[in-house]
Amino acid sequence: MSRLLKQTLRAIEPLNSVLTEKARVRQNKLTKPQGSLGRLEELSIQLAGIKGEFPIRIEHKAIIIMAADQGVAAEGVSAYPQEVTAQMVNNFLLGGAGINVLARLVGARTVVVDMGVAVNLELHPQLLCRKLAFGTGNMAMGPAMTYEEATRSMETGIEIVEAEIARGLDIVGTGDMGIGNTTASSAICALMTGEYLVEVTGRGTGINDEQVAHKIEVIQRSLDVNHPNPRDPVDVLAKVGGFEIGGLAGVMLGAAAHRIPVVIDGFISGAAALIATALAPRLKRYLIAAHVSPETGHGILLKHLDLKPLLDLGMRLGEGTGAALGIFLTEAAANILCEMATFDEAGVSKREDN
Amino acid sequence: MSRLLKQTLRAIEPLNSVLTEKARVRQNKLTKPQGSLGRLEELSIQLAGIKGEFPIRIEHKAIIIMAADQGVAAEGVSAYPQEVTAQMVNNFLLGGAGINVLARLVGARTVVVDMGVAVNLELHPQLLCRKLAFGTGNMAMGPAMTYEEATRSMETGIEIVEAEIARGLDIVGTGDMGIGNTTASSAICALMTGEYLVEVTGRGTGINDEQVAHKIEVIQRSLDVNHPNPRDPVDVLAKVGGFEIGGLAGVMLGAAAHRIPVVIDGFISGAAALIATALAPRLKRYLIAAHVSPETGHGILLKHLDLKPLLDLGMRLGEGTGAALGIFLTEAAANILCEMATFDEAGVSKREDN
Repeated sequence: MSRLLKQTLRAIEPLNSVLTEKARVRQNKLTKPQGSLGRLEELSIQLAGIKGEFPIRIEHKAIIIMAADQGVAAEGVSAYPQEVTAQMVNNFLLGGAGINVLARLVGARTVVVDMGVAVNLELHPQLLCRKLAFGTGNMAMGPAMTYEEATRSMETGIEIVEAEIARGLDIVGTGDMGIGNTTASSAICALMTGEYLVEVTGRGTGINDEQVAHKIEVIQRSLDVNHPNPRDPVDVLAKVGGFEIGGLAGVMLGAAAHRIPVVIDGFISGAAALIATALAPRLKRYLIAAHVSPETGHGILLKHLDLKPLLDLGMRLGEGTGAALGIFLTEAAANILCEMATFDEAGVSKREDN
Repeated sequence: MSRLLKQTLRAIEPLNSVLTEKARVRQNKLTKPQGSLGRLEELSIQLAGIKGEFPIRIEHKAIIIMAADQGVAAEGVSAYPQEVTAQMVNNFLLGGAGINVLARLVGARTVVVDMGVAVNLELHPQLLCRKLAFGTGNMAMGPAMTYEEATRSMETGIEIVEAEIARGLDIVGTGDMGIGNTTASSAICALMTGEYLVEVTGRGTGINDEQVAHKIEVIQRSLDVNHPNPRDPVDVLAKVGGFEIGGLAGVMLGAAAHRIPVVIDGFISGAAALIATALAPRLKRYLIAAHVSPETGHGILLKHLDLKPLLDLGMRLGEGTGAALGIFLTEAAANILCEMATFDEAGVSKREDN
């Protein structure tokens, strides 16, 4: 393991318990019945502990979208052709994708990263080129990448989030693009949670029952060929992961090392979180699960991560679309804690039994 | 029934099916797998049908907060003293309440209405004084208000939303403040849904089991004393309702008559929706349920209204706090429909089986 990755893992501290306690006490003084803002209250307390500051600042927001191609797409596991990965990156850069719309609404900048798209993309001032290869290898026939590439993908994520921190960053959302990457994510999910493959393999972009059966068979073959070691998350990432998944794991680790809350998106971000939290269990408390998608493995991995999703809107697009909505709710939680008046400030009477 | 109310009920039309169809077709051309934005897609289609326009404009947003006191508070049904209603109105006007924080975040103006607070409130440029009385009568001993007052409360709601429409209004959220008003809402809920009182009576601002039992007993007494007629929603509102509940019912009717979508908040707004939709069944399709609260009757009445809540965050504050978050999600849905690129525009390949 490289120096940057080791340093980052070591830098992730527990939440600041002085601040979580301070936030908890303040929530109970605000002009509302105790607990009446539910999850927003819990979230504000977590945020205070993550950021170690009061008031909590959520001004600079970014959604980092990692794109890469999957060699396993050659096995026909997706409803869409591989060229869509590159086309959608272009769509992100032109501002026409779902994530552009939602990021604009919540005031988050989008950071689009080519982690390993299968073709050369045109240069664009908004595109970060960090291509590790022209797509991963086909995991059904051998490892998706080398152990070194897996490490390098995570380091790239760390470097990218650190560059964003240098530009100003108070909260980060994760997003992905990669035709075939629910296949890799299901493989990771099965290995890291111990669940049966059939429980964690879903319809992705919208395949039918027969195609799901084929997808499961392809993943089973990938596991049989590669024998990933679930006790070594880097080995799992190398053998059945993706460059974008490694990159997102790195973003999560790098953000947490700098006490930046991470709003994770859907199933692919969740798979990245399984890898990253296995390397640094303390990371879990820095993660906010934006939503749960209909992709069958997503709910399972969130439970494994001990994360309760904020939303359940049947969204399964990826790109960070769920994360954008989660950033809004997180900002709402922070503002409630920091901007609401207390009973004393507002001259409001307390409960009669207090 | 008065002329304004009758006219308003008659003016509520079915959704515009040309626009819902246009929105549905467009959703399936946008650069994402069909259906992959889940509830946001459904919501955008409903919105198009409500507003009858494309693109959908959501620029001017307001949350109308109706405050009034409940005579039944004298029976000790709440954890808080009655004076809190007036104190919280003051808090709304000073900007320190939960709804102020969330309305600011979503860019909605707040409209605070005194529909019948038990004391004289200080004049304030932001406070609309539409006081029908100094609180309702104690429904455990007689009707909460007269039939004429019930009608008048709804007309007041209609007038207020029409004044907001004149100022510019693309979407409206509903909010309430009134110590004791979950008691009235449970009575309305039991009558209008036919559910047992024990199923629809909850903890309100946070009372214990013994106090809930007392609350149920008080409501039962109110029903026995008043014999409200569930087939006459105005009679129900008069006998066991509240001025703020009637006002919110009027806001919903008035908004729908002008094709403005209404994001309803929690249990009290839900009780108002039961009254209003009983008068104008077409209203249902103009309502968007922001969230479901832990107040036991809320989920029940939403099912009765055939409304699926967008959020389930354990929120039970009222004031329109849930509605504010719902307005955000509705705007997200509208923007997705109107701002995303189509496959053709973005040059993205379609499904391989298409």
